[in-house]
Amino acid sequence: MDFFSTHEELLTTALRAISERSYWSAYSESPSPKVYGETAVPEGRAAFQALLGKDFPLDQPAAQRVAPEKSPLGIALGVSYPQTPVDTLIAHARQALPGWRDAGPQGRAGVCLEILARLHKRVFELANAVHATTGQPFVMAFQAGGPHALDRALEAIAYGYAEQTRQVGSVTWVKKADSLDKTYHLAPRGIGLVIGCNTFPTWNSWPGMFASLITGNPVIVKPHPRAVLPLAISVQVAREVLAEAGLDPNTVQLAVDTVDAPVTKELALRPEVKLIDFTGSTAFGDWLEQNARQAQVYTEKAGVNTVVIDSTDNLDGMARNLAFSLILYSGQMCTTPQNLLIPAQGIQTDQGHKNFDDVVRAIGAAVSSMLADPAKAVELTGAIVNDEIPGRIDRARGMGEVMLDSAPIAHPSYPDAVVRTPLIVKATDGYASECFGPVSFAVPTESTQDSVRIFRETIGEKGALTAAVYSTSDAVLEEMEKAAVDVGVHLSENLTGGVFVNQSAAFSDFHASGANPAANATLTDGAFVASRFRIVQSRRPTPA
Amino acid sequence: MDFFSTHEELLTTALRAISERSYWSAYSESPSPKVYGETAVPEGRAAFQALLGKDFPLDQPAAQRVAPEKSPLGIALGVSYPQTPVDTLIAHARQALPGWRDAGPQGRAGVCLEILARLHKRVFELANAVHATTGQPFVMAFQAGGPHALDRALEAIAYGYAEQTRQVGSVTWVKKADSLDKTYHLAPRGIGLVIGCNTFPTWNSWPGMFASLITGNPVIVKPHPRAVLPLAISVQVAREVLAEAGLDPNTVQLAVDTVDAPVTKELALRPEVKLIDFTGSTAFGDWLEQNARQAQVYTEKAGVNTVVIDSTDNLDGMARNLAFSLILYSGQMCTTPQNLLIPAQGIQTDQGHKNFDDVVRAIGAAVSSMLADPAKAVELTGAIVNDEIPGRIDRARGMGEVMLDSAPIAHPSYPDAVVRTPLIVKATDGYASECFGPVSFAVPTESTQDSVRIFRETIGEKGALTAAVYSTSDAVLEEMEKAAVDVGVHLSENLTGGVFVNQSAAFSDFHASGANPAANATLTDGAFVASRFRIVQSRRPTPA
Repeated sequence: MDFFSTHEELLTTALRAISERSYWSAYSESPSPKVYGETAVPEGRAAFQALLGKDFPLDQPAAQRVAPEKSPLGIALGVSYPQTPVDTLIAHARQALPGWRDAGPQGRAGVCLEILARLHKRVFELANAVHATTGQPFVMAFQAGGPHALDRALEAIAYGYAEQTRQVGSVTWVKKADSLDKTYHLAPRGIGLVIGCNTFPTWNSWPGMFASLITGNPVIVKPHPRAVLPLAISVQVAREVLAEAGLDPNTVQLAVDTVDAPVTKELALRPEVKLIDFTGSTAFGDWLEQNARQAQVYTEKAGVNTVVIDSTDNLDGMARNLAFSLILYSGQMCTTPQNLLIPAQGIQTDQGHKNFDDVVRAIGAAVSSMLADPAKAVELTGAIVNDEIPGRIDRARGMGEVMLDSAPIAHPSYPDAVVRTPLIVKATDGYASECFGPVSFAVPTESTQDSVRIFRETIGEKGALTAAVYSTSDAVLEEMEKAAVDVGVHLSENLTGGVFVNQSAAFSDFHASGANPAANATLTDGAFVASRFRIVQSRRPTPA
Repeated sequence: MDFFSTHEELLTTALRAISERSYWSAYSESPSPKVYGETAVPEGRAAFQALLGKDFPLDQPAAQRVAPEKSPLGIALGVSYPQTPVDTLIAHARQALPGWRDAGPQGRAGVCLEILARLHKRVFELANAVHATTGQPFVMAFQAGGPHALDRALEAIAYGYAEQTRQVGSVTWVKKADSLDKTYHLAPRGIGLVIGCNTFPTWNSWPGMFASLITGNPVIVKPHPRAVLPLAISVQVAREVLAEAGLDPNTVQLAVDTVDAPVTKELALRPEVKLIDFTGSTAFGDWLEQNARQAQVYTEKAGVNTVVIDSTDNLDGMARNLAFSLILYSGQMCTTPQNLLIPAQGIQTDQGHKNFDDVVRAIGAAVSSMLADPAKAVELTGAIVNDEIPGRIDRARGMGEVMLDSAPIAHPSYPDAVVRTPLIVKATDGYASECFGPVSFAVPTESTQDSVRIFRETIGEKGALTAAVYSTSDAVLEEMEKAAVDVGVHLSENLTGGVFVNQSAAFSDFHASGANPAANATLTDGAFVASRFRIVQSRRPTPA
C-alpha cells in the first residue's frame, strides 16, 4: 500500500491550513447519520460493548494483565490489558527505531495518516470509549475525542512533515573546483513517551504521539490508568497499519499501569527516552521538567484561567457564553475559566449599570437555565471524573459567599454517575491557585485597572491556558491584549456567540502558549516538532 | 530609514538558500583589493590600531573599566571596556524588551540586516581584532571572523524570520454564524545571553546573538575575557543601528568580565535570562545545561573528532587534505580531527598497500611540507591561544610513539607569539577524550570494522563535531554513513581537494548536529530558532 499517495492531498491541504489559519477541519464534527451513515452510531456502540469484560486484543508480551479503569459513569468496563515490562518496551522500541527512521518523512506521513483514517473509521467506538472513561457527555466525547482530536493529530503531522522537508534531501554543491554531493539524513532523537490524562485521553495525547512518530521516533503510550481504552484502541490501530506497511509494530507500544503501581517515573527516567509529552497536574509536570533531564519534555499542566469583565453591550450573550463554558464537562477542562474579575462597583451594560452581584447572578441564572432539565443537563455536564472533586466543591463553598450553589443531578442513564453543577463563590482571597472542577470565583476588584493587575499577577505566577475579557472600550481591549502578550496567555474577547473561551480550533487557534507556567509547549507550532529530530549530514566528492 | 526595504532582497535570497542548500554566500571571502577596494586593508588596520590602549567607545554605564585581553600574538591591546553591573544589564534589557518585541519581525529583520551590513563595512577592522585576540592567521581571521561569520549570522536571521512568518499575522475566521478576527502576536522568551569563546568570537557568537534578536529578545553579549574586542565592535554597531531606528540601544549590551572575576554564572542563573547560547568547554556547557534551568540553553562543547581510514585511491590528496586540517590554526578548532583510526595491518591505496606507519608518515610528511617555510607556516598555524596547550602537547608525547613531533616556530612578525606545529602520536589508549590543541592520535585498529566500532563508541560517549572517512569501498562508505547517522555526527567522505573536514559552509552545511554529546544544537536549523519565541493569540468577534 502506498499510504502516502493515498493521503498526500489531505497532507497538502493541512500544510496550507497551518499557514493560513482560517477555518478548516478535515474530520466532520457532526455525529449526524447524514455525515457518518445510519449504522455508524449503533455499530460504534456495539464495537465498544464487544470489548467490555474481555482481554483487549493487543499483540504485546504480557508479564501480567491489568484492568485498571473505573468509569465515572459507572459503566462496567472490565477490559484487561497486557502489561509489558518496561525493559521489554524499551528494548522493543529501540529495535523498531532504525526501520521507522529509514522509512523517511513520506513513508512515515503515509503510515501516520492511514492510522488517522482508520481511527476515523472507528470514531464512534472511540467516542464510546472516551465517554465511558472520562465521563464526558457523549456528543462532547465524540467531538473532542474524535474529529477534533484527529484534527489536532493531523496538525502535528503537518508541522512535523513541514519541518523535516523544509530543506532538500540532497544537493550537489559546487564551489570553484570542488563539487560535493551532500545528503541530509533525518535522525530521530530516540524513544518518545506519551503520558495521557484522564479527561482527554485522545485529544491531549495524539498531538505528541504523532509529533514524535512523524519525526522518526518510536513511541510508548502510557495512558492514565483510568482512561486506557481510547489509547489502547489508538495503539492497536497504529500497530495494525505498521504491520501492513511492513514496519515493526513495536514502533508504537502501549504501557499500561495502575493507580497503585505506576510505571510513569521509571519510564520517564530511562536514558533511551528522549521525548516526553505530558498532560496533567502541575506537580507531576514540574517533576518531569526537573528530573527527566535526558529528554525534551513537553508539558501541559494547570493554571488559573481568568476572565476580566469590564463592560458589555450584550449582557445576556455574555452570561450565556460564560455559563456554557462553566457548565461544559462540569468545568473539568484545563481551559475552563476559574476567576471572574469584576469591579466591585459594577459595570456598564446594554441593560444599564449592573452592580457586582447583578453580573454574577446573570451568569448564574444562565447556568441554571441551561441546566433546568436534568436529562439535557447531563448532556452538558457529563460526570465528575474523580472522587476528589466533590470535597473540593465543599471546601470552596467555605471561601466566601455562594453566589450560585453546586447541586447534584441524578443521571437519567447512569445511576452511579456523580454529577455536580457549577459553583460560583464570591472570593476575595484564595482564588489565585487552581481549583480543578466545577468551581469558579467571582472576584470583586477595585476597578478594571485592578482586574488587569490581578490578571497579570496570577497568570504571571501560576499561568493560564485561557483568558477572556468583556469590554466595550477599545482602550481596555488594547490594554488587555498587551497584558495577555506580556504574561503569555491567549485571549478571547467579547465572546457571546457559538465560540467559547474553553475551546480552540485546530489549524487556527493555538492551544496553550508555552509562554507562561501552565505549559511549556503549544498545540501546535514549529517549536513543538523542531527538536524531535536532528539533521545529520554526509558529503562526498561528486563522482566524475 | 526603512532598513527592511533596503535588505529585503538579501533576506529573500537567504530564505531560498536555507532551503536549497547549494553553494551561496552573501559576503565575499576574498580579502582581495579587487573585491573590497584598495584602501580597505590599510583603513581596517588603522581603525583597529586607533582603538588600542584607549577606552572603547561604548555608551553603557560603567561601575569600572576593565582591560582583560591578552593577545596570543603579543599585540599590546590595552583596550578598556565599561563594566556594567549585572543588575543594570538585566534592568536595561527588560526595559528594552517591549519596544524590540513591538518592532515586529520585519522591523527586527531590517535592524539585524543593517547591523550585518555595517559589520561588513568594518570587516577588516574586525579581522584585525579577531587576529589579535585569537591568534588566528590573518586571512583566516578575516574569512572565519568576517564573511563566514556574517553568512552564519544571516542564516540565523533567515531561519528566525521564516519561523515567525510561517503563519499569517492575522486572519478572519468564519465558521457558520461565528466570525472572529484573530491576531497572532509574537512574544519573545525574555533576555538572551550569548557567551563567547576565545577562538572564534564572532563566528561562534553571532548566530545565537542574531537568532535571539530576530525573534524579539534583547541580548546581553558576554565575550570571553581574552577576546572582547570583536564582540565589543559588534555591540557598538548594533547599538548605533538601534538608536538610528528609534529603538532602545540597550536591546544589545556588552557584559565584560575578567578571568579572575567572571560574571557568567551570575548572568546565566538570572531568572530573566531565558535563552543562553554558549560555545566553549564541555565542563561549563554541561554546567549551564544542568543549572540554568530557567533558560533554553544552546551549547556547542567539545568532542572527539574522528577519521576512519580504510583505503584511498588518492593517498597524496588524502594526506594533503588531512594535513591542512591538522595544521590550520594549530588544531585549535572545535572541528579539527583528533583521532585517525587506521587498520594496524595497513590499507590499500593508489600507490599499493601501505602499512600503518606509511599512512601516518604520509600525513606527517604533508604537514612538514606545508610548514617548511616558517613565514608561510605561521599564516596557517597562527599562534597558540592559551598557556595550557604547550603542556598538553608535552603530555601527549608520552602517550605513545611520536610519529610527527610538534615543534615551535619563531613568528616572523610577532616575537612573543607561541607557535606549535602539529603532533601525531601513535596511541592505543587515552585517545577517547578531547585533547584540545595541535595533537592528533593515530590509532592502530584490528580492521576497518574495528575502526567503525571505536568510532561508534567514542562518539556515542564523548560526541564529536566532525567525522571523516576515506574508503574506495561503497560498502564501507555506506556502513560509515549508517554509523554516523546512528551516533549523530556529520560525515565527510574522501575529501582530497579544497574542502576540509574542519570547515562548514553556511547555507549548505550544518555545523554540529545536536545529536551527540558534543553539542545540543546546530548552526542552523529550525530547532535553533523555534523555541526562542512564542505565539500569543487574541481573537474577537469580527465587527459587523
